[in-house]
Amino acid sequence: MFKLPETPKVAVDCIVEYHRKLVVIERLYPPLGYAWPGGFIDVGETAEEAVIREVGEEINLKVNVVDLIGVYSDPKRDPRGHVISLTYIAEYVAGTPKPKDDAKKVHLYTLTEAMKLDMVIDHGQMLMNALDHAKFNRRRI
Amino acid sequence: MFKLPETPKVAVDCIVEYHRKLVVIERLYPPLGYAWPGGFIDVGETAEEAVIREVGEEINLKVNVVDLIGVYSDPKRDPRGHVISLTYIAEYVAGTPKPKDDAKKVHLYTLTEAMKLDMVIDHGQMLMNALDHAKFNRRRI
Repeated sequence: MFKLPETPKVAVDCIVEYHRKLVVIERLYPPLGYAWPGGFIDVGETAEEAVIREVGEEINLKVNVVDLIGVYSDPKRDPRGHVISLTYIAEYVAGTPKPKDDAKKVHLYTLTEAMKLDMVIDHGQMLMNALDHAKFNRRRI
Repeated sequence: MFKLPETPKVAVDCIVEYHRKLVVIERLYPPLGYAWPGGFIDVGETAEEAVIREVGEEINLKVNVVDLIGVYSDPKRDPRGHVISLTYIAEYVAGTPKPKDDAKKVHLYTLTEAMKLDMVIDHGQMLMNALDHAKFNRRRI
């Protein structure tokens, strides 16, 4: 039986629009600070399933995944170890945002407000890359 | 110290153009068949570094990574276990294609020929997704 080698860990992060605002969390655990909701992908689920599960667990929203906006794989990006983030944009389906699980607080920011935040790791860069993405801009947040 | 959880493993695959042909390998190890060159990302390297290393080790070409074309994360896609593929397109820089490491043979196919291949796992789908990608089509293989 082939034994799979050790690789970096893999997580998802997700930029969610909720009534023309972006949903930003304050993380409960290190790295502390402003972040997009997300978390580690479980063995046995797709990346899109992980987005839907994590957004539900963390900010109480049901979402549809719209598109992949980037892969963030710098070994030094996450102080906890080598974690690759697959970053998606998603659209709101149902629910009211409230902090659960790893989120201490949930904030709703306009795009202009979100762009001024000092976010954890490369989460500010994720928003910049989302702005390059046609399906994000077409929504005109 | 935070212990990173178990997640799926993460690999890269890469569609490389070489003198207006696509470089397809025949895999030496299961899953056997036609595939794009690629392999597991090492802890400590970026996804783009893994592409450059794996393409060098497997088909003896030096390449530049052009762009990400997709993430393939179905838990059942790889018979060896849950492996997420980050799939890239890359452009030829130097070297002569020859099989090394995990490649039994290296083939150079036109786009039309490559589209007729029965490739391993979802590697045929990767080519279809690459065709949706502007930076791939602009090269007019």
